[in-house]
Amino acid sequence: MTEKKRTTIILFSGDYDKAMAAYIIANGAAAYDHEVTIFHTFWGLNALRKDEPLALKKGLLEKMFAKMMPRGADKMALSKMNFAGMGPKMIKNVIKKHNAMPLPQLIEMAQEQDIKLVACTMTMDLLGLQQEELLDNIEYAGVAAYLADAQEGNVNLFI
Amino acid sequence: MTEKKRTTIILFSGDYDKAMAAYIIANGAAAYDHEVTIFHTFWGLNALRKDEPLALKKGLLEKMFAKMMPRGADKMALSKMNFAGMGPKMIKNVIKKHNAMPLPQLIEMAQEQDIKLVACTMTMDLLGLQQEELLDNIEYAGVAAYLADAQEGNVNLFI
Amino acid sequence: MTEKKRTTIILFSGDYDKAMAAYIIANGAAAYDHEVTIFHTFWGLNALRKDEPLALKKGLLEKMFAKMMPRGADKMALSKMNFAGMGPKMIKNVIKKHNAMPLPQLIEMAQEQDIKLVACTMTMDLLGLQQEELLDNIEYAGVAAYLADAQEGNVNLFI
Repeated sequence: MTEKKRTTIILFSGDYDKAMAAYIIANGAAAYDHEVTIFHTFWGLNALRKDEPLALKKGLLEKMFAKMMPRGADKMALSKMNFAGMGPKMIKNVIKKHNAMPLPQLIEMAQEQDIKLVACTMTMDLLGLQQEELLDNIEYAGVAAYLADAQEGNVNLFI
Repeated sequence: MTEKKRTTIILFSGDYDKAMAAYIIANGAAAYDHEVTIFHTFWGLNALRKDEPLALKKGLLEKMFAKMMPRGADKMALSKMNFAGMGPKMIKNVIKKHNAMPLPQLIEMAQEQDIKLVACTMTMDLLGLQQEELLDNIEYAGVAAYLADAQEGNVNLFI
Repeated sequence: MTEKKRTTIILFSGDYDKAMAAYIIANGAAAYDHEVTIFHTFWGLNALRKDEPLALKKGLLEKMFAKMMPRGADKMALSKMNFAGMGPKMIKNVIKKHNAMPLPQLIEMAQEQDIKLVACTMTMDLLGLQQEELLDNIEYAGVAAYLADAQEGNVNLFI
């Protein structure tokens, strides 16, 4: 087994701040020539949702999940100090003030750097998310594909 | 140092969804011939609790922890959208609908696949958990044993 | 690329119990001759704050963050069962009872074992934290320095 410079991140969390951390590490690793994959599962899938309502056929449970979960990176909440939405506003304000990048731009940058963005098909199924609802140019795969990437490198994180 | 295909997961979280993710990755890795260990520490120990009350001698603090913590995998709450127990019910319903496996079955499957399930003795001590309260056929160890496994492979996750 | 015994932990969380887990693993790894780094980012920076108010020039947002975030390891809350501060007290009581180490002592021990404690400069900036507010003898760096350490070893955790 050859050891490549590779960073593979599982993004499980649907929190704005944790997703920011994931994408900052990923973009940094890509800049240092790592092959980088972000595998989005469970609530982390929300980072890939498009910010537009779509008329899709869904069962009742799937409709409830779709309604309760944030539609896209910009709508996600903080893991701490969310204060009913005040926290994300504060974070976005400091990001702007310090010329840092908000999450949607970090995701765009990741796509430009050819970071492989993967949506976990098993949890898409569970949460009733369909491909039409997610960003373009992402891949769809399961735990086998994750392992194939992860076992080839050593920067493996679960966020 | 030889690099084996090895997946070593620390399950710190006591959330139903995070424990599901841990066991799905572990079962997947075992299916792809990894040697797999799940090291349960802090709230993750609750996944290993038996679903039956036992008359054990405990101090007051230990009794309080025992009472407040979920007794076994089936009683655990979600990390997000728990809604006083509504969330876990929804998740269990979609799991059933999609013929996926609920957490207790994922744990059984892990034991059948010879995944090493370890309970962290130091945090058992802190939380006042005794071996009689936990599932049969698990191992008891500390951070040294965790490191011995983790340093031999490269899929190392903290969940 | 040579494979060293190396443990590199990103401490993102500001929870007392998660920080304890991070420092217990780190101290264990150092005892087994790993080169160990803890990279503190976002809320994890609070573990490094000094427990004394300082008169520093800060903007309004930075003042708000400084006020809302815990000042130092001893003031951090639990990730679960915090119960308005009851939980940390219970944990600290059982730690005392079992002769285990509370977080501030775990951090001291880490410094004595030459574990590299790093504060993420990018998130210090975002949260308005200044070097004067953090413990002495820590390093200041960004994602590039994190990756340089992480890619040289295989026990890489995000906590």
